[in-house]
Amino acid sequence: MIPTPYLLFLGDAQDQLSAKVAQGIKDWRPENAVGQLRLAGCGADIGLNDLTLEAAKAAGAQTLVIGVANRGGVISQAWKDVLIQALNMGFDIASGLHNLLSDEADLVEAARANGRQLHDVRIPSVAYPIADGVKRSGKRCLAVGTDCSIGKMYTSLAVDAEMRKRGLKSTFRPTGQTGILITGSGVPLDAVVADFMAGAVEYLTPDNDDDHWDHIEGQGSLFHASYSGVTLALIHGGQPDALILAHEPTRTHMRGLPHYGLPSLETLRDTALLLARVVNPACEVVGISVNTQHLNEADAIKCLTDIEARMGLPTVDPFRHGAGRLVDALAAM
Amino acid sequence: MIPTPYLLFLGDAQDQLSAKVAQGIKDWRPENAVGQLRLAGCGADIGLNDLTLEAAKAAGAQTLVIGVANRGGVISQAWKDVLIQALNMGFDIASGLHNLLSDEADLVEAARANGRQLHDVRIPSVAYPIADGVKRSGKRCLAVGTDCSIGKMYTSLAVDAEMRKRGLKSTFRPTGQTGILITGSGVPLDAVVADFMAGAVEYLTPDNDDDHWDHIEGQGSLFHASYSGVTLALIHGGQPDALILAHEPTRTHMRGLPHYGLPSLETLRDTALLLARVVNPACEVVGISVNTQHLNEADAIKCLTDIEARMGLPTVDPFRHGAGRLVDALAAM
Repeated sequence: MIPTPYLLFLGDAQDQLSAKVAQGIKDWRPENAVGQLRLAGCGADIGLNDLTLEAAKAAGAQTLVIGVANRGGVISQAWKDVLIQALNMGFDIASGLHNLLSDEADLVEAARANGRQLHDVRIPSVAYPIADGVKRSGKRCLAVGTDCSIGKMYTSLAVDAEMRKRGLKSTFRPTGQTGILITGSGVPLDAVVADFMAGAVEYLTPDNDDDHWDHIEGQGSLFHASYSGVTLALIHGGQPDALILAHEPTRTHMRGLPHYGLPSLETLRDTALLLARVVNPACEVVGISVNTQHLNEADAIKCLTDIEARMGLPTVDPFRHGAGRLVDALAAM
Repeated sequence: MIPTPYLLFLGDAQDQLSAKVAQGIKDWRPENAVGQLRLAGCGADIGLNDLTLEAAKAAGAQTLVIGVANRGGVISQAWKDVLIQALNMGFDIASGLHNLLSDEADLVEAARANGRQLHDVRIPSVAYPIADGVKRSGKRCLAVGTDCSIGKMYTSLAVDAEMRKRGLKSTFRPTGQTGILITGSGVPLDAVVADFMAGAVEYLTPDNDDDHWDHIEGQGSLFHASYSGVTLALIHGGQPDALILAHEPTRTHMRGLPHYGLPSLETLRDTALLLARVVNPACEVVGISVNTQHLNEADAIKCLTDIEARMGLPTVDPFRHGAGRLVDALAAM
């Protein structure tokens, strides 16, 4: 667990898009952030109060979270000056960067000297078990996509938020670094050793109340040649009761694989359901989440209506129109 | 690459079964082994000449291969005495044990002092790429099983051996520690980090002559909740042109998962083919390999005949009756 609340470090972010982690925390767990810290030339602003380290400390911040992508794969000296000062002031530091905090000798030394933790959420901190496939209590929902990076995390966060708003028992279970930083814990599944992937998902989603829903963050796609194994481990470790299909209607090929087309929603439905029923024969597909960000409102509505008519399942863009109908479908199970 | 030929270390093996790695090397690559080395009380004998380290060295041995499982998860002092002497005499050492040679300070020091290598084949020694899914030249065959530990490696080794006997171009591509020790190289897939699994399989089976066959060692099963992700990464990284279904007819539940039944061969065929065609639309199932070790000859023949009639595919136990009909089917593609 990463101690909350956070101060969000935006550094010298190139632009708003590079502050995606900080934006995710602000959108989904605003109670986890007391403010933002920006360096000279920062091109991002997520709309929180600009706080100094001192002011953030006074406001109760426990951890400085790196909320931006860094440039050129190095942690610059300008960043380090702030990070070391933060450690000296008693902050933990958390990061999902590819280059690890724990590979930087000066940060390691400053953390040690101050008794603070460096949280590199991109690498596992737990020795996960091998999956045993034993049925667990509680309910689980997993979004599976026609492709990677298609809105699965957003969908699960939106469904979780709507469930909690309705007073239902619900937990978002992150499997990637952004999700882990948003909530403060989770499993960095793409960095787990092959034999332990499904076991890591079982560890992430343990027995729970019968009326509690885990919303497991999806990864990859069964149809993405690079990452499909991670997706299947999520399905078999997650034992989902419910699947939500995630799709982006304007994508012309699989992300990063220009010679691969996307599967149809029908193929995704049938394949994911067949594989999910290996571990949970009662699993059902409950709805479809369509990422319509590249469509205007009229085209988005038409796209959603067409898919809903074709597939016979509640079909929404949770960003545009909320996740209410997906929650209705889950609550009806 | 592990330098060959080997001297096979059987230590104080409990019984013949515990010397499975040494037996595999003797069965499949006898030219890789100059002899065996046994300690007092050794309960295994794989039928090679008993050689001292000196005699093995004189016979050209380059590497001492640990050909047995060790007891109690420790490398005993009796073993270490031999291993250190071997390093001092200029042998490399290779091992697929869970406890790593490289975790033993005295072995590391002796290897360093003598300029020798410790080959822990259970851990990856390469930074594998992320899979790009680009079509590669040459042909690839993968065995997929209704369960784990069902004869997939044996099937691929037997098909490879028969192809080479017929003068066809063929390479066995190991993905587990036994296979790696048999041939001297490969990818320990179950120890690869999730994001790189499919890329490791692409690395293992690069472009080749159009009439060359790679026989990729299978792992896990699409229907085994603990390891299915590894299997799917093999299918998508391997781009198989041909699949062989592997089955063990007397097994009553999935290995290690007493509450899971096995899928039918029809379900395995349809699911594996659907997923393989994502990366290779021309993929076909060419035959079935049945492990009949728990059946008498009459029952085995009946089992094979029944399955062949039902599935309409060449069905053999390669251990009992050879892999000829599977090679016929591959050669006809």
